[in-house]
Amino acid sequence: MKKETIERRIEELVKPHFNLLTESAMQYSVTAGGKRIRPLLVLTVGEDIGVEEERLVDVAVAVELFHTASLVHDDLPPIDNADFRRGKPSCHRAYGEGIALLAGDGLFFLAFSQIAKVREPKLFEEFSETAYKLLLGEAMDVEFERQEKEISVEMVEKMYSFKTGALFAFCFSAPFLLKGLDHTFVKKLGEKFGVAFQIYDDLKDVLGSLEKLGKDVGKDVKKVTLVKKMGVQKAKQLADKYYEEVLEALESEGLHRTFDFLRNLKKMVEER
Amino acid sequence: MKKETIERRIEELVKPHFNLLTESAMQYSVTAGGKRIRPLLVLTVGEDIGVEEERLVDVAVAVELFHTASLVHDDLPPIDNADFRRGKPSCHRAYGEGIALLAGDGLFFLAFSQIAKVREPKLFEEFSETAYKLLLGEAMDVEFERQEKEISVEMVEKMYSFKTGALFAFCFSAPFLLKGLDHTFVKKLGEKFGVAFQIYDDLKDVLGSLEKLGKDVGKDVKKVTLVKKMGVQKAKQLADKYYEEVLEALESEGLHRTFDFLRNLKKMVEER
Repeated sequence: MKKETIERRIEELVKPHFNLLTESAMQYSVTAGGKRIRPLLVLTVGEDIGVEEERLVDVAVAVELFHTASLVHDDLPPIDNADFRRGKPSCHRAYGEGIALLAGDGLFFLAFSQIAKVREPKLFEEFSETAYKLLLGEAMDVEFERQEKEISVEMVEKMYSFKTGALFAFCFSAPFLLKGLDHTFVKKLGEKFGVAFQIYDDLKDVLGSLEKLGKDVGKDVKKVTLVKKMGVQKAKQLADKYYEEVLEALESEGLHRTFDFLRNLKKMVEER
Repeated sequence: MKKETIERRIEELVKPHFNLLTESAMQYSVTAGGKRIRPLLVLTVGEDIGVEEERLVDVAVAVELFHTASLVHDDLPPIDNADFRRGKPSCHRAYGEGIALLAGDGLFFLAFSQIAKVREPKLFEEFSETAYKLLLGEAMDVEFERQEKEISVEMVEKMYSFKTGALFAFCFSAPFLLKGLDHTFVKKLGEKFGVAFQIYDDLKDVLGSLEKLGKDVGKDVKKVTLVKKMGVQKAKQLADKYYEEVLEALESEGLHRTFDFLRNLKKMVEER
Protein backbone atom coordinates (compact mmCIF):
# COMPACT_ATOMS: atom_id res chain seq x y z
CA MET A 1 0.00 0.00 0.00
CA LYS A 2 2.66 2.49 1.08
CA LYS A 3 4.93 1.14 -1.63
CA GLU A 4 2.27 1.70 -4.30
CA THR A 5 1.81 5.29 -3.18
CA ILE A 6 5.53 5.83 -3.50
CA GLU A 7 5.79 4.14 -6.90
CA ARG A 8 2.86 6.10 -8.29
CA ARG A 9 4.21 9.43 -7.07
CA ILE A 10 7.67 8.68 -8.47
CA GLU A 11 6.22 7.71 -11.84
CA GLU A 12 4.23 10.93 -12.09
CA LEU A 13 7.23 12.96 -11.13
CA VAL A 14 9.70 11.61 -13.67
CA LYS A 15 7.40 11.61 -16.67
CA PRO A 16 9.41 13.31 -19.45
CA HIS A 17 8.16 16.75 -20.52
CA PHE A 18 10.74 17.74 -23.09
CA ASN A 19 11.39 14.50 -24.89
CA LEU A 20 14.96 14.44 -23.60
CA LEU A 21 17.17 11.39 -23.22
CA THR A 22 18.24 12.83 -19.88
CA GLU A 23 14.63 12.65 -18.71
CA SER A 24 14.35 9.04 -19.93
CA ALA A 25 17.57 8.20 -18.11
CA MET A 26 16.18 9.67 -14.88
CA GLN A 27 13.01 7.65 -15.32
CA TYR A 28 14.99 4.51 -16.15
CA SER A 29 17.11 4.70 -13.02
CA VAL A 30 14.42 5.59 -10.55
CA THR A 31 11.93 3.00 -11.80
CA ALA A 32 14.46 0.17 -12.02
CA GLY A 33 12.86 -1.71 -9.14
CA GLY A 34 14.60 -0.55 -6.00
CA LYS A 35 13.36 -1.91 -2.69
CA ARG A 36 12.34 1.60 -1.57
CA ILE A 37 13.67 0.94 1.92
CA ARG A 38 14.33 4.62 2.65
CA PRO A 39 10.95 6.07 1.60
CA LEU A 40 9.14 3.24 3.36
CA LEU A 41 11.13 4.02 6.48
CA VAL A 42 10.07 7.69 6.28
CA LEU A 43 6.39 6.74 6.03
CA THR A 44 6.63 4.08 8.73
CA VAL A 45 8.29 6.38 11.27
CA GLY A 46 5.65 8.97 10.36
CA GLU A 47 2.88 6.45 11.00
CA ASP A 48 4.39 5.62 14.40
CA ILE A 49 4.35 9.21 15.60
CA GLY A 50 1.17 10.30 13.83
CA VAL A 51 2.22 12.40 10.85
CA GLU A 52 -0.29 12.13 8.00
CA GLU A 53 1.05 10.16 5.06
CA GLU A 54 0.17 12.93 2.60
CA ARG A 55 2.51 15.35 4.36
CA LEU A 56 5.32 12.81 4.17
CA VAL A 57 5.02 11.39 0.66
CA ASP A 58 6.96 14.27 -0.90
CA VAL A 59 9.73 13.72 1.63
CA ALA A 60 9.73 9.96 1.08
CA VAL A 61 9.96 10.40 -2.68
CA ALA A 62 12.70 13.02 -2.31
CA VAL A 63 14.80 10.59 -0.30
CA GLU A 64 14.45 7.89 -2.96
CA LEU A 65 15.25 10.29 -5.82
CA PHE A 66 18.30 11.47 -3.94
CA HIS A 67 19.45 7.95 -3.17
CA THR A 68 19.05 6.92 -6.82
CA ALA A 69 20.93 10.01 -8.01
CA SER A 70 23.85 9.18 -5.77
CA LEU A 71 23.93 5.62 -7.14
CA VAL A 72 23.89 6.92 -10.74
CA HIS A 73 26.91 9.11 -10.04
CA ASP A 74 28.70 6.41 -8.02
CA ASP A 75 28.33 3.91 -10.81
CA LEU A 76 30.03 6.20 -13.35
CA PRO A 77 33.37 4.99 -14.74
CA PRO A 78 35.61 7.51 -12.91
CA ILE A 79 34.06 6.44 -9.58
CA ASP A 80 32.95 2.78 -9.24
CA ASN A 81 32.68 1.89 -12.94
CA ALA A 82 29.74 -0.44 -12.27
CA ASP A 83 28.05 -2.08 -15.25
CA PHE A 84 24.95 -3.25 -13.41
CA ARG A 85 22.56 -1.81 -10.90
CA ARG A 86 19.34 -3.32 -9.57
CA GLY A 87 19.71 -6.20 -12.07
CA LYS A 88 19.83 -3.94 -15.12
CA PRO A 89 22.60 -2.12 -16.99
CA SER A 90 23.65 0.91 -14.97
CA CYS A 91 22.48 4.29 -16.20
CA HIS A 92 25.66 5.17 -18.12
CA ARG A 93 25.73 1.70 -19.70
CA ALA A 94 22.23 2.32 -21.00
CA TYR A 95 22.48 6.04 -21.86
CA GLY A 96 26.15 6.98 -21.99
CA GLU A 97 28.25 8.82 -19.44
CA GLY A 98 27.25 12.37 -20.30
CA ILE A 99 23.53 11.69 -20.06
CA ALA A 100 23.99 9.67 -16.85
CA LEU A 101 25.92 12.51 -15.27
CA LEU A 102 23.11 14.95 -16.15
CA ALA A 103 20.42 12.48 -15.07
CA GLY A 104 22.07 12.20 -11.66
CA ASP A 105 22.12 15.98 -11.31
CA GLY A 106 18.49 16.11 -12.44
CA LEU A 107 17.39 13.58 -9.84
CA PHE A 108 19.27 15.49 -7.15
CA PHE A 109 17.47 18.72 -8.07
CA LEU A 110 14.06 17.06 -8.33
CA ALA A 111 14.67 15.71 -4.83
CA PHE A 112 15.32 19.22 -3.52
CA SER A 113 12.16 20.44 -5.32
CA GLN A 114 10.13 17.80 -3.53
CA ILE A 115 11.53 18.84 -0.18
CA ALA A 116 10.82 22.48 -1.03
CA LYS A 117 7.14 21.65 -1.60
CA VAL A 118 6.77 20.81 2.09
CA ARG A 119 7.64 24.44 2.95
CA GLU A 120 9.24 23.64 6.28
CA PRO A 121 12.56 25.51 6.62
CA LYS A 122 14.00 23.07 9.17
CA LEU A 123 13.35 20.20 6.80
CA PHE A 124 15.18 21.67 3.85
CA GLU A 125 18.03 22.76 6.08
CA GLU A 126 18.35 19.21 7.37
CA PHE A 127 18.06 17.77 3.87
CA SER A 128 20.73 20.09 2.44
CA GLU A 129 23.11 19.21 5.26
CA THR A 130 22.37 15.52 4.75
CA ALA A 131 23.15 15.84 1.05
CA TYR A 132 26.50 17.43 1.74
CA LYS A 133 27.35 14.88 4.42
CA LEU A 134 26.54 12.01 2.08
CA LEU A 135 28.78 13.59 -0.53
CA LEU A 136 31.65 13.90 1.94
CA GLY A 137 31.17 10.24 2.85
CA GLU A 138 31.28 9.30 -0.80
CA ALA A 139 34.45 11.38 -1.22
CA MET A 140 36.06 9.61 1.75
CA ASP A 141 35.13 6.27 0.23
CA VAL A 142 36.74 7.18 -3.10
CA GLU A 143 39.81 8.80 -1.56
CA PHE A 144 40.60 6.29 1.20
CA GLU A 145 41.35 3.57 -1.33
CA ARG A 146 43.87 5.86 -3.03
CA GLN A 147 45.62 6.95 0.14
CA GLU A 148 48.85 5.27 1.12
CA LYS A 149 48.56 5.85 4.83
CA GLU A 150 46.64 3.38 6.96
CA ILE A 151 42.98 4.31 7.50
CA SER A 152 41.76 3.59 11.05
CA VAL A 153 38.64 1.57 11.86
CA GLU A 154 37.21 4.77 13.37
CA MET A 155 37.68 6.68 10.13
CA VAL A 156 35.99 3.93 8.10
CA GLU A 157 33.09 3.93 10.53
CA LYS A 158 32.87 7.71 10.21
CA MET A 159 32.84 7.32 6.43
CA TYR A 160 29.95 4.82 6.72
CA SER A 161 27.99 7.08 9.03
CA PHE A 162 28.31 9.87 6.43
CA LYS A 163 27.93 7.85 3.24
CA THR A 164 25.08 5.59 4.34
CA GLY A 165 24.09 6.76 7.81
CA ALA A 166 23.28 10.37 6.93
CA LEU A 167 20.36 9.59 4.62
CA PHE A 168 18.91 7.01 7.03
CA ALA A 169 19.28 9.59 9.79
CA PHE A 170 17.24 11.98 7.66
CA CYS A 171 14.56 9.31 7.13
CA PHE A 172 14.20 9.02 10.90
CA SER A 173 14.43 12.76 11.50
CA ALA A 174 12.02 14.08 8.87
CA PRO A 175 8.75 12.97 10.53
CA PHE A 176 9.99 14.27 13.89
CA LEU A 177 10.86 17.64 12.33
CA LEU A 178 7.44 17.87 10.67
CA LYS A 179 5.82 17.06 14.00
CA GLY A 180 7.86 19.78 15.71
CA LEU A 181 9.62 17.21 17.91
CA ASP A 182 13.27 16.99 18.87
CA HIS A 183 15.04 14.66 16.44
CA THR A 184 18.47 14.39 18.07
CA PHE A 185 17.96 10.87 19.39
CA VAL A 186 16.39 9.31 16.28
CA LYS A 187 18.96 10.98 14.07
CA LYS A 188 21.69 9.13 15.98
CA LEU A 189 19.70 5.91 15.65
CA GLY A 190 19.51 6.44 11.90
CA GLU A 191 23.26 6.91 11.65
CA LYS A 192 23.91 3.76 13.63
CA PHE A 193 21.44 1.85 11.51
CA GLY A 194 23.22 3.14 8.39
CA VAL A 195 26.58 1.83 9.59
CA ALA A 196 25.06 -1.61 10.24
CA PHE A 197 23.33 -1.54 6.86
CA GLN A 198 26.58 -0.65 5.10
CA ILE A 199 28.42 -3.52 6.79
CA TYR A 200 25.73 -5.96 5.61
CA ASP A 201 26.19 -4.49 2.14
CA ASP A 202 29.94 -5.13 2.34
CA LEU A 203 29.35 -8.70 3.49
CA LYS A 204 26.91 -9.24 0.64
CA ASP A 205 29.56 -7.94 -1.72
CA VAL A 206 32.11 -10.39 -0.34
CA LEU A 207 29.77 -13.37 -0.21
CA GLY A 208 27.13 -12.61 -2.85
CA SER A 209 26.60 -13.41 -6.48
CA LEU A 210 25.49 -11.30 -9.42
CA GLU A 211 22.22 -13.16 -9.91
CA LYS A 212 21.12 -12.51 -6.39
CA LEU A 213 22.22 -8.93 -6.14
CA GLY A 214 21.75 -7.44 -9.55
CA LYS A 215 24.84 -5.32 -9.23
CA ASP A 216 28.48 -5.94 -9.86
CA VAL A 217 30.01 -8.11 -7.17
CA GLY A 218 33.64 -7.92 -6.18
CA LYS A 219 34.11 -4.58 -7.93
CA ASP A 220 34.82 -3.10 -4.55
CA VAL A 221 38.04 -5.08 -4.14
CA LYS A 222 40.18 -1.98 -3.66
CA LYS A 223 37.69 -0.29 -1.38
CA VAL A 224 38.51 0.26 2.26
CA THR A 225 35.73 -1.51 4.17
CA LEU A 226 35.07 -2.43 7.77
CA VAL A 227 34.88 -6.06 6.67
CA LYS A 228 38.44 -5.85 5.43
CA LYS A 229 39.65 -3.90 8.44
CA MET A 230 38.00 -6.17 11.02
CA GLY A 231 37.44 -9.46 9.23
CA VAL A 232 34.07 -10.98 8.30
CA GLN A 233 33.22 -12.30 11.77
CA LYS A 234 33.95 -9.17 13.77
CA ALA A 235 32.33 -6.90 11.22
CA LYS A 236 29.20 -9.04 11.24
CA GLN A 237 29.16 -8.93 15.05
CA LEU A 238 29.41 -5.14 15.02
CA ALA A 239 26.59 -4.83 12.48
CA ASP A 240 24.39 -7.21 14.49
CA LYS A 241 25.14 -5.29 17.69
CA TYR A 242 24.23 -1.94 16.13
CA TYR A 243 21.13 -3.37 14.51
CA GLU A 244 19.99 -4.84 17.84
CA GLU A 245 20.62 -1.57 19.65
CA VAL A 246 18.51 0.26 17.10
CA LEU A 247 15.68 -2.27 17.40
CA GLU A 248 15.76 -2.08 21.20
CA ALA A 249 15.65 1.70 21.15
CA LEU A 250 12.72 1.68 18.73
CA GLU A 251 10.82 -0.71 20.97
CA SER A 252 11.45 1.24 24.14
CA GLU A 253 10.46 4.49 22.38
CA GLY A 254 7.22 2.89 21.26
CA LEU A 255 7.98 3.08 17.53
CA HIS A 256 6.44 -0.34 16.96
CA ARG A 257 5.77 -0.21 13.24
CA THR A 258 9.31 0.95 12.57
CA PHE A 259 10.56 -1.84 14.83
CA ASP A 260 8.63 -4.42 12.79
CA PHE A 261 9.73 -2.91 9.50
CA LEU A 262 13.41 -3.04 10.39
CA ARG A 263 13.18 -6.48 11.97
CA ASN A 264 11.62 -7.87 8.80
CA LEU A 265 14.20 -6.06 6.73
CA LYS A 266 16.94 -7.84 8.64
CA LYS A 267 15.44 -11.21 7.79
CA MET A 268 15.35 -10.16 4.13
CA VAL A 269 18.95 -9.04 4.29
CA GLU A 270 20.07 -12.30 5.88
CA GLU A 271 18.17 -14.54 3.51
CA ARG A 272 19.49 -13.12 0.30
CA MET B 1 33.32 46.27 -1.60
CA LYS B 2 30.45 43.92 -2.49
CA LYS B 3 32.91 41.73 -4.32
CA GLU B 4 35.17 41.49 -1.27
CA THR B 5 32.23 40.45 0.90
CA ILE B 6 31.40 37.71 -1.58
CA GLU B 7 34.99 36.50 -1.89
CA ARG B 8 35.46 36.42 1.86
CA ARG B 9 32.25 34.47 2.45
CA ILE B 10 33.09 31.99 -0.29
CA GLU B 11 36.57 31.43 1.12
CA GLU B 12 35.20 30.73 4.60
CA LEU B 13 32.64 28.36 3.20
CA VAL B 14 34.92 26.12 1.17
CA LYS B 15 37.70 25.78 3.73
CA PRO B 16 38.43 22.01 3.87
CA HIS B 17 37.41 20.28 7.10
CA PHE B 18 38.29 16.67 6.35
CA ASN B 19 41.51 17.00 4.42
CA LEU B 20 39.83 15.62 1.29
CA LEU B 21 40.95 16.17 -2.28
CA THR B 22 37.28 16.68 -3.13
CA GLU B 23 37.20 19.64 -0.74
CA SER B 24 40.39 21.06 -2.31
CA ALA B 25 38.85 20.65 -5.76
CA MET B 26 35.74 22.56 -4.65
CA GLN B 27 37.93 25.30 -3.27
CA TYR B 28 40.07 25.34 -6.40
CA SER B 29 37.12 25.78 -8.73
CA VAL B 30 35.21 28.36 -6.78
CA THR B 31 38.23 30.55 -6.04
CA ALA B 32 39.61 30.44 -9.58
CA GLY B 33 38.86 34.11 -10.18
CA GLY B 34 35.37 34.26 -11.64
CA LYS B 35 33.90 37.68 -12.34
CA ARG B 36 31.12 37.05 -9.81
CA ILE B 37 28.55 38.63 -12.11
CA ARG B 38 25.63 36.63 -10.67
CA PRO B 39 26.23 37.28 -6.94
CA LEU B 40 26.95 40.94 -7.65
CA LEU B 41 23.66 41.11 -9.52
CA VAL B 42 21.83 39.65 -6.52
CA LEU B 43 23.32 42.23 -4.16
CA THR B 44 22.79 45.12 -6.59
CA VAL B 45 19.12 44.33 -7.18
CA GLY B 46 18.78 44.00 -3.40
CA GLU B 47 20.35 47.42 -2.89
CA ASP B 48 17.95 48.93 -5.41
CA ILE B 49 14.85 47.69 -3.60
CA GLY B 50 16.19 47.99 -0.06
CA VAL B 51 17.01 44.48 1.13
CA GLU B 52 19.89 44.51 3.62
CA GLU B 53 23.07 43.06 2.21
CA GLU B 54 23.47 40.66 5.13
CA ARG B 55 20.18 38.94 4.28
CA LEU B 56 21.31 38.50 0.68
CA VAL B 57 24.93 37.43 0.99
CA ASP B 58 24.03 33.77 1.56
CA VAL B 59 21.85 33.86 -1.55
CA ALA B 60 24.54 35.58 -3.60
CA VAL B 61 27.12 33.03 -2.55
CA ALA B 62 24.72 30.15 -3.24
CA VAL B 63 24.21 31.37 -6.78
CA GLU B 64 27.97 31.52 -7.40
CA LEU B 65 28.56 28.06 -5.90
CA PHE B 66 25.80 26.66 -8.05
CA HIS B 67 27.10 28.33 -11.18
CA THR B 68 30.62 27.02 -10.53
CA ALA B 69 29.30 23.50 -9.88
CA SER B 70 27.48 23.50 -13.20
CA LEU B 71 30.68 24.59 -14.97
CA VAL B 72 32.68 21.82 -13.27
CA HIS B 73 30.22 19.20 -14.50
CA ASP B 74 29.92 20.76 -17.98
CA ASP B 75 33.68 20.73 -18.42
CA LEU B 76 33.92 16.97 -17.76
CA PRO B 77 35.03 14.79 -20.70
CA PRO B 78 31.65 13.15 -21.42
CA ILE B 79 30.04 16.60 -21.70
CA ASP B 80 32.23 19.46 -23.05
CA ASN B 81 35.67 17.96 -22.40
CA ALA B 82 37.13 21.40 -21.65
CA ASP B 83 40.75 21.58 -20.55
CA PHE B 84 40.67 25.17 -19.31
CA ARG B 85 38.32 27.29 -17.25
CA ARG B 86 38.86 30.81 -15.99
CA GLY B 87 42.43 30.72 -17.30
CA LYS B 88 43.41 27.64 -15.31
CA PRO B 89 43.21 23.88 -15.91
CA SER B 90 39.61 22.77 -15.49
CA CYS B 91 38.74 20.92 -12.29
CA HIS B 92 39.08 17.42 -13.75
CA ARG B 93 42.37 18.33 -15.43
CA ALA B 94 43.70 19.36 -12.03
CA TYR B 95 42.07 16.68 -9.83
CA GLY B 96 40.88 13.87 -12.08
CA GLU B 97 37.39 13.07 -13.30
CA GLY B 98 36.08 11.25 -10.24
CA ILE B 99 37.06 14.00 -7.81
CA ALA B 100 35.72 16.70 -10.17
CA LEU B 101 32.39 14.91 -10.40
CA LEU B 102 32.15 14.76 -6.61
CA ALA B 103 33.36 18.36 -6.25
CA GLY B 104 30.55 19.50 -8.55
CA ASP B 105 27.99 17.61 -6.48
CA GLY B 106 29.50 19.08 -3.31
CA LEU B 107 29.25 22.64 -4.60
CA PHE B 108 25.63 22.03 -5.63
CA PHE B 109 24.77 20.80 -2.13
CA LEU B 110 26.64 23.62 -0.41
CA ALA B 111 24.64 26.03 -2.55
CA PHE B 112 21.36 24.50 -1.34
CA SER B 113 22.65 24.68 2.26
CA GLN B 114 23.28 28.40 1.84
CA ILE B 115 19.79 28.95 0.49
CA ALA B 116 18.37 26.89 3.37
CA LYS B 117 20.06 29.21 5.88
CA VAL B 118 17.77 32.04 4.75
CA ARG B 119 14.77 30.01 5.95
CA GLU B 120 12.36 31.41 3.40
CA PRO B 121 10.32 28.59 1.81
CA LYS B 122 9.54 30.53 -1.36
CA LEU B 123 13.21 31.14 -1.94
CA PHE B 124 14.10 27.49 -1.52
CA GLU B 125 11.30 26.48 -3.86
CA GLU B 126 12.40 28.99 -6.50
CA PHE B 127 16.01 27.92 -6.21
CA SER B 128 15.18 24.21 -6.55
CA GLU B 129 13.08 24.89 -9.63
CA THR B 130 15.83 27.05 -11.07
CA ALA B 131 18.34 24.27 -10.53
CA TYR B 132 16.19 21.76 -12.38
CA LYS B 133 15.48 24.19 -15.20
CA LEU B 134 19.17 24.89 -15.64
CA LEU B 135 19.80 21.16 -15.77
CA LEU B 136 17.14 20.68 -18.46
CA GLY B 137 18.73 23.51 -20.45
CA GLU B 138 22.10 21.84 -20.14
CA ALA B 139 20.55 18.55 -21.27
CA MET B 140 18.99 20.26 -24.30
CA ASP B 141 22.37 21.75 -25.15
CA VAL B 142 24.07 18.35 -25.00
CA GLU B 143 21.29 16.52 -26.82
CA PHE B 144 20.52 19.01 -29.59
CA GLU B 145 23.96 18.57 -31.11
CA ARG B 146 23.40 14.83 -31.30
CA GLN B 147 19.94 15.02 -32.84
CA GLU B 148 19.55 14.58 -36.57
CA LYS B 149 16.40 16.59 -36.97
CA GLU B 150 16.65 20.34 -37.43
CA ILE B 151 16.38 22.34 -34.20
CA SER B 152 14.32 25.52 -34.58
CA VAL B 153 15.53 28.98 -33.55
CA GLU B 154 12.72 28.99 -30.98
CA MET B 155 13.98 25.77 -29.40
CA VAL B 156 17.53 27.11 -29.18
CA GLU B 157 16.23 30.28 -27.56
CA LYS B 158 14.25 28.16 -25.10
CA MET B 159 17.41 26.18 -24.35
CA TYR B 160 19.27 29.46 -23.65
CA SER B 161 16.52 30.76 -21.41
CA PHE B 162 16.77 27.52 -19.37
CA LYS B 163 20.53 27.00 -19.42
CA THR B 164 21.61 30.59 -18.84
CA GLY B 165 18.42 32.57 -18.27
CA ALA B 166 17.08 30.58 -15.31
CA LEU B 167 19.91 31.41 -12.93
CA PHE B 168 19.90 35.10 -13.93
CA ALA B 169 16.15 35.08 -13.42
CA PHE B 170 16.75 33.78 -9.91
CA CYS B 171 19.31 36.55 -9.26
CA PHE B 172 16.63 39.12 -10.12
CA SER B 173 13.86 37.28 -8.26
CA ALA B 174 15.57 36.48 -4.96
CA PRO B 175 15.62 40.03 -3.52
CA PHE B 176 11.98 40.53 -4.58
CA LEU B 177 10.99 37.27 -2.89
CA LEU B 178 12.81 38.23 0.31
CA LYS B 179 11.07 41.60 0.25
CA GLY B 180 7.71 39.87 -0.20
CA LEU B 181 7.20 41.49 -3.61
CA ASP B 182 5.86 39.97 -6.81
CA HIS B 183 8.80 38.76 -8.89
CA THR B 184 7.03 37.77 -12.14
CA PHE B 185 8.23 40.76 -14.11
CA VAL B 186 11.88 40.77 -13.02
CA LYS B 187 12.06 37.03 -13.46
CA LYS B 188 11.19 37.48 -17.12
CA LEU B 189 13.76 40.25 -17.38
CA GLY B 190 16.37 37.89 -15.97
CA GLU B 191 15.55 35.23 -18.53
CA LYS B 192 15.78 37.71 -21.37
CA PHE B 193 19.05 39.00 -20.01
CA GLY B 194 20.33 35.41 -19.85
CA VAL B 195 19.52 34.81 -23.51
CA ALA B 196 21.40 37.97 -24.50
CA PHE B 197 24.30 36.99 -22.27
CA GLN B 198 24.49 33.54 -23.81
CA ILE B 199 24.54 34.97 -27.34
CA TYR B 200 27.45 37.23 -26.37
CA ASP B 201 29.15 34.14 -24.99
CA ASP B 202 28.64 32.34 -28.32
CA LEU B 203 30.02 35.32 -30.22
CA LYS B 204 33.01 35.43 -27.92
CA ASP B 205 33.56 31.75 -28.63
CA VAL B 206 33.45 32.36 -32.37
CA LEU B 207 35.59 35.49 -32.33
CA GLY B 208 37.68 35.16 -29.17
CA SER B 209 41.08 33.86 -28.28
CA LEU B 210 42.30 31.65 -25.44
CA GLU B 211 44.47 34.36 -23.88
CA LYS B 212 41.56 36.70 -23.50
CA LEU B 213 38.99 34.22 -22.34
CA GLY B 214 40.85 31.68 -20.26
CA LYS B 215 38.74 28.83 -21.51
CA ASP B 216 38.87 26.60 -24.53
CA VAL B 217 37.81 28.41 -27.66
CA GLY B 218 36.23 26.70 -30.62
CA LYS B 219 35.45 23.57 -28.58
CA ASP B 220 31.80 24.29 -29.15
CA VAL B 221 32.03 23.67 -32.90
CA LYS B 222 29.37 20.97 -32.85
CA LYS B 223 27.07 22.86 -30.53
CA VAL B 224 23.76 24.18 -31.78
CA THR B 225 23.91 27.94 -31.15
CA LEU B 226 21.81 30.95 -32.09
CA VAL B 227 24.88 32.41 -33.77
CA LYS B 228 25.01 29.41 -36.09
CA LYS B 229 21.28 29.38 -36.64
CA MET B 230 20.97 33.11 -37.35
CA GLY B 231 24.45 34.20 -38.38
CA VAL B 232 26.76 36.52 -36.42
CA GLN B 233 25.06 39.78 -37.41
CA LYS B 234 21.48 38.81 -36.68
CA ALA B 235 22.39 37.04 -33.45
CA LYS B 236 24.30 40.10 -32.29
CA GLN B 237 21.30 42.29 -33.18
CA LEU B 238 18.99 40.06 -31.15
CA ALA B 239 21.31 40.11 -28.14
CA ASP B 240 21.66 43.90 -28.33
CA LYS B 241 17.89 44.27 -28.62
CA TYR B 242 17.23 42.08 -25.56
CA TYR B 243 19.95 43.79 -23.59
CA GLU B 244 18.50 47.22 -24.41
CA GLU B 245 15.01 46.11 -23.46
CA VAL B 246 16.29 44.89 -20.12
CA LEU B 247 18.16 48.15 -19.49
CA GLU B 248 15.09 50.22 -20.41
CA ALA B 249 12.86 48.20 -18.12
CA LEU B 250 15.33 48.56 -15.25
CA GLU B 251 15.42 52.30 -15.74
CA SER B 252 11.69 52.71 -15.91
CA GLU B 253 11.26 50.52 -12.80
CA GLY B 254 13.75 52.69 -10.95
CA LEU B 255 16.35 49.97 -10.47
CA HIS B 256 19.15 52.44 -11.13
CA ARG B 257 22.07 50.61 -9.58
CA THR B 258 21.20 47.45 -11.46
CA PHE B 259 20.88 49.53 -14.63
CA ASP B 260 24.41 50.93 -14.11
CA PHE B 261 25.81 47.51 -13.24
CA LEU B 262 24.48 45.87 -16.39
CA ARG B 263 25.37 48.82 -18.60
CA ASN B 264 28.97 48.66 -17.40
CA LEU B 265 28.96 44.91 -17.80
CA LYS B 266 28.03 45.36 -21.44
CA LYS B 267 31.02 47.61 -22.03
CA MET B 268 33.22 44.97 -20.42
CA VAL B 269 31.70 42.27 -22.60
CA GLU B 270 32.22 44.32 -25.76
CA GLU B 271 35.78 45.29 -24.97
CA ARG B 272 37.11 41.83 -24.41
